[in-house]
Amino acid sequence: MAEKTEPRVLQGTMELLPPDQILFNRMYDTIRAVYESFGFLPLDTPVLEYSNVLLAKAGGETEKQIYRFVKGDTDLSMRFDLTVPLARYVALHKADLVFPFKRYQMSKVYRGERPQKGRFREFYQCDIDIIGQDALDLMYDAEMPAVIYNVFTKLAFGDFVIRINNRKVLNGFFASLGLADKIADILRTIDKLEKIGEAKVAAELAEFGVSAAATEKILAFIGITGKNADVLSALDALDCADETFCEGVSELRKVVEYAYLYGIPEKNIAIDLTIARGLDYYTGTVYETKLVDYPTLGSVCSGGRYDNLTGYYTEDAMPGIGISIGLTRLFSQLRSENIVSDERKSLTDVLFIPMDKNHIDFVLSSAAKLRAAGLNVDVYCLDKGMKPKMKFANRSGIPYVALVGDDEAGAGKIMLKDMQSGEQALCTAEEAIAKLVK
Amino acid sequence: MAEKTEPRVLQGTMELLPPDQILFNRMYDTIRAVYESFGFLPLDTPVLEYSNVLLAKAGGETEKQIYRFVKGDTDLSMRFDLTVPLARYVALHKADLVFPFKRYQMSKVYRGERPQKGRFREFYQCDIDIIGQDALDLMYDAEMPAVIYNVFTKLAFGDFVIRINNRKVLNGFFASLGLADKIADILRTIDKLEKIGEAKVAAELAEFGVSAAATEKILAFIGITGKNADVLSALDALDCADETFCEGVSELRKVVEYAYLYGIPEKNIAIDLTIARGLDYYTGTVYETKLVDYPTLGSVCSGGRYDNLTGYYTEDAMPGIGISIGLTRLFSQLRSENIVSDERKSLTDVLFIPMDKNHIDFVLSSAAKLRAAGLNVDVYCLDKGMKPKMKFANRSGIPYVALVGDDEAGAGKIMLKDMQSGEQALCTAEEAIAKLVK
Repeated sequence: MAEKTEPRVLQGTMELLPPDQILFNRMYDTIRAVYESFGFLPLDTPVLEYSNVLLAKAGGETEKQIYRFVKGDTDLSMRFDLTVPLARYVALHKADLVFPFKRYQMSKVYRGERPQKGRFREFYQCDIDIIGQDALDLMYDAEMPAVIYNVFTKLAFGDFVIRINNRKVLNGFFASLGLADKIADILRTIDKLEKIGEAKVAAELAEFGVSAAATEKILAFIGITGKNADVLSALDALDCADETFCEGVSELRKVVEYAYLYGIPEKNIAIDLTIARGLDYYTGTVYETKLVDYPTLGSVCSGGRYDNLTGYYTEDAMPGIGISIGLTRLFSQLRSENIVSDERKSLTDVLFIPMDKNHIDFVLSSAAKLRAAGLNVDVYCLDKGMKPKMKFANRSGIPYVALVGDDEAGAGKIMLKDMQSGEQALCTAEEAIAKLVK
Repeated sequence: MAEKTEPRVLQGTMELLPPDQILFNRMYDTIRAVYESFGFLPLDTPVLEYSNVLLAKAGGETEKQIYRFVKGDTDLSMRFDLTVPLARYVALHKADLVFPFKRYQMSKVYRGERPQKGRFREFYQCDIDIIGQDALDLMYDAEMPAVIYNVFTKLAFGDFVIRINNRKVLNGFFASLGLADKIADILRTIDKLEKIGEAKVAAELAEFGVSAAATEKILAFIGITGKNADVLSALDALDCADETFCEGVSELRKVVEYAYLYGIPEKNIAIDLTIARGLDYYTGTVYETKLVDYPTLGSVCSGGRYDNLTGYYTEDAMPGIGISIGLTRLFSQLRSENIVSDERKSLTDVLFIPMDKNHIDFVLSSAAKLRAAGLNVDVYCLDKGMKPKMKFANRSGIPYVALVGDDEAGAGKIMLKDMQSGEQALCTAEEAIAKLVK
């Protein structure tokens, strides 16, 4: 074969070496275990969907990013999020599902982005949603931060704060200022507060025709900070009579109260009136999550409540609440800042190293015993010297090797060596199991 | 919204309801655990690759099935197997890998098939491969059936036989008949023996210009069956002097011997001289696996040894051995024949049902205790009557409910009800944990 093709990986995709893949999988498994511990059911919808089905709702920027193509006479698209497939799934399988339907899906999604730092064309989203057939109790709004709290406690990236708000508070407040028709613009501007600062926000608001008096009120409103109880009191003190506003404040109060009952410490959940979330469909509680020690990462887990998930597919309005962790982006950021710990980069507990082929029967039966006890066991089978054999163990990061030569096999034992400390001890397979199985 | 889009799922993809998804995930997790127990490392290459990279080797039928498209100025293809991405990965990351490199990848692959029963456009392959930098010991050829044996023992679909052969035996034997240039055609015809029978095979061979004498020898050769030791003796007795043939028989003998040392009972591994495997690149040991009780499923796990994985990307010839389980196809067949058992269709261990909101603090703190003990716990939060609450538990297949009303909360206890037997007992959270945690 003369011509060789240069092996390249597509820009904007994440491909890991085994030690990093092991760390990634550990994060993935941790999130999945917490999702399951709260009763969420697994789902795995296809990546490929009929374009007209997947794009029933899409438009504008989203549609431009879709990987869409025709094969034979079928117009296909790759999913760009897990929410639209969920809507399609619920609409399609409604009769066979039990409501409230709690599902998780942790899968790749695809967006035809121009490749740039932090932007991925193929990335994992880890979503949970709760879908109701009719009304959904506010308890479920509090379950989301409860799940987030458990996930980020287990992931152990240090302190984090789940920031919470309610779109009704925002919508009602702006309606009371006569700015109901400008809510979208105003919210978008407020969303940039942290980035561009108060003065520029005020200037932008003026461009939208917001009066100076209203701007003052808006800035005062979003300036309400402090302990959750204080923020709620301050909202009450605004004396805003708007019905939606009052409903929103009441909901926010209840959700925070329930969140405490879910065991979330006060320091981990904070009302933040500047949170709006970009997406159009959030209608109640909204969430963002920040890692205290790494503020530049932005929100690592966001979501909210929506009124009508399945509107593009059925007449029934099905309300829901969901959150999403962008795992690929999170992992890649944490890795680049060396935050993810890699104290153990091998999944394999023990590597058997036969000195030669003489005792391979003893080696294989001993390895099988350790495996049956739940250990991950590799056997080095190449006919090489001791040096390359130990180098393999070292480079692989395997914590223990089991050496077997004439002496060991003769005694029916293995020489178990701790690769970290260098200590070694002659022991039976059973003794090795007792030592290594936790 | 007036126009509704009909929610449909793309033909040729598998989408499951939660109880089936739970069963599927259990199979997936079982396979993954066995792969890891043998020291295979996880890999997760991107679905999307540059077309010229992914298709470096492809041609003919394969290329026609590729989902390929241009986005912006990038020519992209979705992977159609996990072997080409592995070759690309190894060629790209060679310097950072430890050899022999043992990896597993259990991911979806995509093929633009015309949809028909048993053919999928999007399906899981569960692959393991061992890649060597230079020579790879025959021990590794025996490790493959050892892994298969452990996988299908744990999956527990009844008896199974791993059928094994060696391409050198076939190649050498046919070369000795002067049919070296017709091996591909002959092997393809032999591959159909089970389907079309001996007479039609003979007729087809004649069409290829195989003499009657040679055909007789070929049919006698592939008619060699029996215990492994008998087959090996019969091969020796053929007195075929071809060097490749002798090498193949010697390899086959060793691999079977090692396989026994790996703990595979004789009834689970059988030399079968009719196995060739279609793919061009197998050069030594080849495998197929059949479930004894379900012969119509065909081979549920196949693979073999190849000489040069990375030839399209690098000058180095890297040998390897691999097997693959087509999990989507296997699951779908087993489900349609009702073979997969669904004795437990919920992941959730306990559903808390508060009678009302009065004791929600006690309910949530009790649920958290059970969760902290490793149980999966859901809380029903809708304000409905007892009947819909119990119906939710029943339809969800959750094995236990924990009822909490005034009496229970007053006593600091929960009423734990076994949904199968109907038995219920008042107990503390700690007592429930002791009962439910295995």
